[in-house]
Amino acid sequence: MTPAENAQLALLLEVSGTPKPGNVDRERDLPDLRFEHFLAGAVGAGAGLRAAESGAPVGEAFERAVAGMSRQEGDNTQFGALLLVVPLVSAASERGAVTPDAATAVVEATTVDDTANFYRAFEHVDVFVDDPPEDAADLDVRRGADAVPAVEERGTTLAEVMALSAPEDGVAREWTTGFARTFDGAERLAELDGPLSDRTARLFLELLADEPDTLVAKQAGEEAAERVSERAAAALVGETDPGELADELVAEGLNPGTTADVVAAALFVALERGEVSV
Amino acid sequence: MTPAENAQLALLLEVSGTPKPGNVDRERDLPDLRFEHFLAGAVGAGAGLRAAESGAPVGEAFERAVAGMSRQEGDNTQFGALLLVVPLVSAASERGAVTPDAATAVVEATTVDDTANFYRAFEHVDVFVDDPPEDAADLDVRRGADAVPAVEERGTTLAEVMALSAPEDGVAREWTTGFARTFDGAERLAELDGPLSDRTARLFLELLADEPDTLVAKQAGEEAAERVSERAAAALVGETDPGELADELVAEGLNPGTTADVVAAALFVALERGEVSV
Repeated sequence: MTPAENAQLALLLEVSGTPKPGNVDRERDLPDLRFEHFLAGAVGAGAGLRAAESGAPVGEAFERAVAGMSRQEGDNTQFGALLLVVPLVSAASERGAVTPDAATAVVEATTVDDTANFYRAFEHVDVFVDDPPEDAADLDVRRGADAVPAVEERGTTLAEVMALSAPEDGVAREWTTGFARTFDGAERLAELDGPLSDRTARLFLELLADEPDTLVAKQAGEEAAERVSERAAAALVGETDPGELADELVAEGLNPGTTADVVAAALFVALERGEVSV
Repeated sequence: MTPAENAQLALLLEVSGTPKPGNVDRERDLPDLRFEHFLAGAVGAGAGLRAAESGAPVGEAFERAVAGMSRQEGDNTQFGALLLVVPLVSAASERGAVTPDAATAVVEATTVDDTANFYRAFEHVDVFVDDPPEDAADLDVRRGADAVPAVEERGTTLAEVMALSAPEDGVAREWTTGFARTFDGAERLAELDGPLSDRTARLFLELLADEPDTLVAKQAGEEAAERVSERAAAALVGETDPGELADELVAEGLNPGTTADVVAAALFVALERGEVSV
């Protein structure tokens, strides 16, 4: 498979892993967000992923992938996952290998144009984000393309945008750490036994237990996020049933989506390196 | 979405419909054929579907789609579905609309080259087929590319090959009837209520009740196929539970795969015509 194909497959495998407490999986829909929306999101992202594979700049490929992904009625299905996977596809095709160094080289090569296209991507979907710092209100991502002049004036590269967001955002943090959890997750997928779908669910639970989910923190506060991680840890050691935890978190409206994004990226790395296969 | 994207989405939606008695669905794996193999099959078929959309001859696009589809460890996941969907993608892009007439025009325009590529497609996967007629042993599809010289000598178009197979093969029969069950199925999907995944499962059961599945007939005999249709009819009217029937057929090794192929094609038509959406 090509890098773009592995990326598309990673998106599909991520949403198929079950149970993934709090998220849509192949046995659980959320009220307005269903499994089939994720299928359509993965199909629609294909052209943008192929653009990344063919050498398009990261921001342009990402914007295109998000535009394609959003042509379904569930709105934002894979924004965060694509923000991780697109630079990794670029690393695979431009640098010939998916390694932390290659991924970091892609990050460091980003430009102001990449930032502008990143902002344009927010036009296509509603993404749950925090308010920006007071001195950077003009850079609020929710302004979408309207923020592009301010971005260009400040000359902020996409790597710099991600560094600013890293403290509060687990996806951005991957950009600043050589995709550390992504690469660790890929290794873990290779170590685990059983069908890939089961390993995906297990990795999700391990990552969630390991670190509070930043989407839950934005939605419900840091304490809530920490509590979700404790419950994931309890499910990991068999104190509670992961399926029950999944039902509970859906009912409570707690959605550890950032952790799912990292799982998708880990699946891509593991597939692309041949550490797992389908 | 483009025709190729709708086709890929149709493959994914088909396998996600549950319960689809006897087939892999998002809640049921077969021993050596799992849900994730179908995801990878749909991803891999993408390049061939895009070739059909770009005007490649049907046989060439089909062979390419099957080659891509088969790069997963479950072997044959979507051979029959692609044999229906590829000419329909061609109809959508070449003739500007997916109609029975446009599909028939694509079929009637097939050549000996299309037949040769159809035979080459059998090199990539194990497809369950009957013995050929005694006077046509040289045309046995299981010979794959080895049969191409005989195909070329006889000058058989792909439309003629399908007409020969139509009495015993429900996919080939669609080629000779203007894709009658496919188009009826698309209308039915639009009429039904609820999430597309539920409508998919319902259509599968209705088609199976309506006509014995030709793959079951090849695997286990016509009587077995008729009996499966009767059981599907009983499940439709609520006499038995579709989920139980699904578990029973999996246990009995009865796999109504041809009916699933028609469902995938119906999903494509309904998506492409905008009669259903995700």
